[in-house]
Amino acid sequence: MNSATYTINDKHRQQVPQLDVPPRLLLGPGPSNAHPRVLQALGMRQIGHLDPQFISLMNEIQELLRYAWQTDNPLTIPVSGTGSAAMEASLANSVEPGDVVLIGVNGYFGERLVDMAGRYGADVRRIDKPWGEVFSLQELRTALAQHHPAVLALVHAETSTGACQPLTGVGDLCREFNCLLLVDSVTSLGGVPLFLDDWGIDIAYSGSQKCLSCPPGLSPLTFGPRAVEKLHRRQGQVPNWYLDLSLVSKYWGNERTYHHTAPINMNYGLREALRLVAEEGLAARWARHQANAQLLWDGLAGLGLECHVAPEYRLPSLTTVRVPAGVDAKAVARTLLTNYNIEIAGGLGQLAGRVWRIGLMGFNSRPENVLLLLAALQQTL
Amino acid sequence: MNSATYTINDKHRQQVPQLDVPPRLLLGPGPSNAHPRVLQALGMRQIGHLDPQFISLMNEIQELLRYAWQTDNPLTIPVSGTGSAAMEASLANSVEPGDVVLIGVNGYFGERLVDMAGRYGADVRRIDKPWGEVFSLQELRTALAQHHPAVLALVHAETSTGACQPLTGVGDLCREFNCLLLVDSVTSLGGVPLFLDDWGIDIAYSGSQKCLSCPPGLSPLTFGPRAVEKLHRRQGQVPNWYLDLSLVSKYWGNERTYHHTAPINMNYGLREALRLVAEEGLAARWARHQANAQLLWDGLAGLGLECHVAPEYRLPSLTTVRVPAGVDAKAVARTLLTNYNIEIAGGLGQLAGRVWRIGLMGFNSRPENVLLLLAALQQTL
Repeated sequence: MNSATYTINDKHRQQVPQLDVPPRLLLGPGPSNAHPRVLQALGMRQIGHLDPQFISLMNEIQELLRYAWQTDNPLTIPVSGTGSAAMEASLANSVEPGDVVLIGVNGYFGERLVDMAGRYGADVRRIDKPWGEVFSLQELRTALAQHHPAVLALVHAETSTGACQPLTGVGDLCREFNCLLLVDSVTSLGGVPLFLDDWGIDIAYSGSQKCLSCPPGLSPLTFGPRAVEKLHRRQGQVPNWYLDLSLVSKYWGNERTYHHTAPINMNYGLREALRLVAEEGLAARWARHQANAQLLWDGLAGLGLECHVAPEYRLPSLTTVRVPAGVDAKAVARTLLTNYNIEIAGGLGQLAGRVWRIGLMGFNSRPENVLLLLAALQQTL
Repeated sequence: MNSATYTINDKHRQQVPQLDVPPRLLLGPGPSNAHPRVLQALGMRQIGHLDPQFISLMNEIQELLRYAWQTDNPLTIPVSGTGSAAMEASLANSVEPGDVVLIGVNGYFGERLVDMAGRYGADVRRIDKPWGEVFSLQELRTALAQHHPAVLALVHAETSTGACQPLTGVGDLCREFNCLLLVDSVTSLGGVPLFLDDWGIDIAYSGSQKCLSCPPGLSPLTFGPRAVEKLHRRQGQVPNWYLDLSLVSKYWGNERTYHHTAPINMNYGLREALRLVAEEGLAARWARHQANAQLLWDGLAGLGLECHVAPEYRLPSLTTVRVPAGVDAKAVARTLLTNYNIEIAGGLGQLAGRVWRIGLMGFNSRPENVLLLLAALQQTL
């Protein structure tokens, strides 16, 4: 290998100390703090990605994901990347070049869907709403009748606005117009009522680092029978190898054919996170998120602060608060971080500088966190 | 949200016990066992992906990756997925539809490059060699003269065959023919001599779970100045949003613009893994891998077993051993796993059933592991 003729350069051989990180309370739009049991699982010794023990663990993750999503879909898996990877997998596998894809854009992640769908050759049509509002069933019907898309994509929980898109009836509408319903549930899975099969959702994706209280690194994805059928009917290859479900599903299915190496320890963490969801139960978990959000909303009102989203469409997992006139939004967030180790976030896009975003997700949805944040906000404002 | 009208179904609410996994010694083609200090770092409490402390950590990772690769490339990052994600990023960003891409195929991962490059619209040309052999400089020169590619892709360390492709002089050749040199270093980074800049490599990628001894979940990627220039000259968008370096590089560069949420804890682990590389130093680390591989090769010869690759092209990190006539390769691997908790792997593709693959990577490259494996093999055969 002739290595002897080259000299090792120590220019970049940086000496860094042992890792230490401040004790942040992550009350922004995500990641939220992982549950301590999840962090413990993360650090367990590794086994191989084709080890019989790992295959059992894969089955458990899939089954527990089905519970969290309330679906029977066999093709329910964690994608080996953060939330946007599963978002991209949902489009890469369902969209063929030239397909009309209708996207509801009422926030940043609707815009991201537009960007991604375009890269896969979709004929993208959009319906827009001001950020913080949601689409009515009648508006969706009108748009479906006008565009006759192959896929309708909606964001259930818009992390950029805090709005929760009602989905009852949308699945029936999509069947009437013979299109697939694709739903972003990044900030709803495990924290906000979601009945995948009852609502007729064909494709959904999420992230590990929001209401599931696992660190970022995996992103749940599910494809229902109608979506799988469209995948099987494709003319050409999926133009994305890493996210190609026709290959990935053979590793997560009965064949167990090697595709890419699964992130072993992240899957340990996700299993523990989903185990916590099953232990608590969805009814209790959803009620807890709702109760702590209400506590936050009442407290914010007490401080004279106004929520951006109408009460009936507010997400319990993510609240947008309007920045009062004359207040420097960034300075407030910086003070909360510096003085109290609390992370909240500012607005994105249309809402930049106009709102703060406060997340109460999974393990972090606890009354003590609400009380602390309100007290810290009061001190800071 | 009308959740009251739907009933939560407990069908998939599986009760699973606390996670426990057997104490496997991972001596296959990867993942290898993570270093205990890496596992400890993985489980640390989270901070946000835009936290000033996380940004410092990102800088450290980039700098330490430059050391491991012996490169000055500013665009040196961990991609948020396992090895194949960085492989795909290397092609998605460097290939434009119609570009001639010449790929050296002498193993499974060369074939994977062919598959991926085709999905990005490359005009793929291939030079083939039997699995376990490598390409000579003269063979590469002839192929470059014939195909005049925009990119030449070679696998430095073929994990499927155990062959190490010599790279001295290939960078000069690629400059002579005005093409980019793209190199798979998944099973060499941190274990096998590799001088990225001295060898004139324009693009390289790797995995966290091989010689770096970090769990799978991140994949290092580096683009040199000529590769970045081609990226900037692109006519169209990168047809892959998650891996689009024109966006990802703004998060890892000075702008710190949010793209996707980074896998926080995996980055903790990778930092510690790279810190271990810098502590040990590349010279000592490469020598250690070579010495333990030699110990293995001598021991295998003592057992009457034959290595598949000629001594001068053998990877110290991954050894392919020929299965003796009449021996059931799978049964031997199964016995090692069941009786001794040792994982080795069989062959892929052309070598399926014909070889075992034994990895001595990073933390696992230790004489005691060699002795144990040889003893267990002797018992089993």
